[in-house]
Amino acid sequence: MSDVLELARELIARPSVTPDDAGCQALLAARLQRAGFACEHLRFGEVDNLWATHGSGAPVLVLLGHTDVVPPGPREAWSSDPFAPEIRNGVLYGRGAADMKGSVAAFAVAAERFVAAHPEHPGTLAILLTSDEEGDAIDGVRRVADLFRERGQRIDWCITGEPSSTARLGDLLRVGRRGSLSGTLTVKGVQGHVAYPHKARNPIHQAAPALAELVGQVWDGGYESFPPTSLQISNIHAGTGANNVIPGELQVLFNLRYNPHWNAPALEAEIAALLDRHGLEYELRWHRSGEPFYTPEGRLRAVAREVLGQFAGEPPEESTGGGTSDARFIAPLGAQCIEIGPVNASIHQVDEHVSVADLEALPALYGRLVERLLLL
Amino acid sequence: MSDVLELARELIARPSVTPDDAGCQALLAARLQRAGFACEHLRFGEVDNLWATHGSGAPVLVLLGHTDVVPPGPREAWSSDPFAPEIRNGVLYGRGAADMKGSVAAFAVAAERFVAAHPEHPGTLAILLTSDEEGDAIDGVRRVADLFRERGQRIDWCITGEPSSTARLGDLLRVGRRGSLSGTLTVKGVQGHVAYPHKARNPIHQAAPALAELVGQVWDGGYESFPPTSLQISNIHAGTGANNVIPGELQVLFNLRYNPHWNAPALEAEIAALLDRHGLEYELRWHRSGEPFYTPEGRLRAVAREVLGQFAGEPPEESTGGGTSDARFIAPLGAQCIEIGPVNASIHQVDEHVSVADLEALPALYGRLVERLLLL
Ligand SMILES: [Zn+2]
Ligand SMILES: [Zn+2]
Repeated sequence: MSDVLELARELIARPSVTPDDAGCQALLAARLQRAGFACEHLRFGEVDNLWATHGSGAPVLVLLGHTDVVPPGPREAWSSDPFAPEIRNGVLYGRGAADMKGSVAAFAVAAERFVAAHPEHPGTLAILLTSDEEGDAIDGVRRVADLFRERGQRIDWCITGEPSSTARLGDLLRVGRRGSLSGTLTVKGVQGHVAYPHKARNPIHQAAPALAELVGQVWDGGYESFPPTSLQISNIHAGTGANNVIPGELQVLFNLRYNPHWNAPALEAEIAALLDRHGLEYELRWHRSGEPFYTPEGRLRAVAREVLGQFAGEPPEESTGGGTSDARFIAPLGAQCIEIGPVNASIHQVDEHVSVADLEALPALYGRLVERLLLL
Repeated sequence: MSDVLELARELIARPSVTPDDAGCQALLAARLQRAGFACEHLRFGEVDNLWATHGSGAPVLVLLGHTDVVPPGPREAWSSDPFAPEIRNGVLYGRGAADMKGSVAAFAVAAERFVAAHPEHPGTLAILLTSDEEGDAIDGVRRVADLFRERGQRIDWCITGEPSSTARLGDLLRVGRRGSLSGTLTVKGVQGHVAYPHKARNPIHQAAPALAELVGQVWDGGYESFPPTSLQISNIHAGTGANNVIPGELQVLFNLRYNPHWNAPALEAEIAALLDRHGLEYELRWHRSGEPFYTPEGRLRAVAREVLGQFAGEPPEESTGGGTSDARFIAPLGAQCIEIGPVNASIHQVDEHVSVADLEALPALYGRLVERLLLL
């Protein structure tokens, strides 16, 4: 059994449901220390974070990953125990196989091989791991990035191991992610009886023209390879069921996925102005899930494109799609960020899996990237 | 204790929570039969209806009432048992005291006195009672009216005993009621993830401009003494709480209170056309609660205005406000309909009550109306 496959199985066997690390980082730190890495354990609240570095000074290349996984759901829904890794027909099954214990194992194996071959390499090779990527993402990389900012820790390049490939390993290079901003809008009215509308103020009626304008708004026409900024109302609720009562309150939840044309404060101001124009009496609470990030054409993208092309047989699609990732916290430190990882078809689902062939190719893929970036 | 007070107490003591008559109509029928009325018991489903007549031929004057009451709610909330009538400080307390066992008792006493004084009166004096006014109102006066239509039973005038007075007995004469029409609208979309709006179709977004137009619509400018037709959205629901999911469906409940400018089919067609113009994929279910009715100036209103003026000291306000009543089923038979009853401030509430003085004035009030209408 290959080194990376064995390590991936050891990680999957630890039931590290977010934010519990379940000993994954201790296992990895022990290996990396044996290989000569300096390991710093950063525990915030219930969350474990590991910062392992080899070498010193610029350039700083970070391999970014997480050891936590999403809950597996009912055992019966799986073909085999989600925390008892099993290989069937050349495929490794288990919670986290693709998202992203396979990538994390490959990071460690690639790092060991690289520092063994180049003990005096220029710059710094670092591995940053958290156990809070799938959960609240508050005490994870967000807090580590705050610490780095205080310390003046520079990062030049960051490669996140998120499963980004779509059909085969290396067919997609993530070069950015949209920002995500959520709003909870409460429109206040005055409750009453439908037979006496003049004694009430219907918040649904008051909000309707504002909501029509909000969902009709064209925010931008896209940004580089980003799709246009989009607002979606996910929930709308008013009324208790009775059809003769004008409700006193309307609640609306919405989410914006936005490209670098915008930032959260500008979107918040724009939406508040729209609601004010409609004369609504409202409360609006915001939750900023992450600003967008974008890595324009440059050394990191050029190297990644070339290496992925060698593995996949043709140049990758360069994409800014998908949800959010921890790269959103590293990019504001001034780092160029990309995401490269295995096929993501089964993530967050039952029978999550990764092809053994892809898993065994990953250390060489990450190793090639490290060589091309650090061995100038 | 006066005759009407004693009868009202006997009726209140029967816990006739809709649609249960609890023996009220049997008690009343026995009295009316003794007085010479012909009584017909019309039971439909769980609902009791009583049709009691004296005399024959035109004109036919109907006193319309109900023996059922709304549920009293928790006993502890009441100062005394809702089904144990109690007089405190000249006020009779109990569920149904105002709505409308007091009026029903007064109908009976007024009818007894009238036929005793005028055994050979012209035309027909009738009392129609149901035990399903406060509930579904399906097997009550609606069904009786269907039967009358089949039989060719004519009705010239109908006086409903609903508690219509606002501050003192006789200060308001109800001469019509708005119609009520309810709609349940389901707008169909395609569920998806907020990060991939192009793969989904958000029903909230699709419906927003249509709803804005619907609530902005001016239906009419009123009709005679009717207020303008009004549409109110009472409930709107979409989404299951998650803020990253575009819901697959939106549900909207609304109600129209409309004056005689409109009827239910015309409103339904108007709203369907509006939704169609917006290209929505939707389902729309209608519930017709009752067409409007209106009694224009004429003999019935003139007599009622004069009699109420004698009792209240000044002419009554003539109104078409409020909810719906069983008069909506009698009016389409070609009858002129009005509503006259005690002060309605406490109806459907705890400690429902009627002033004993008002209750004891009611038989004379209804009696005067009967005399003025039948003794030509
Ligand atoms: Zn992940
Ligand atoms: Zn009533």
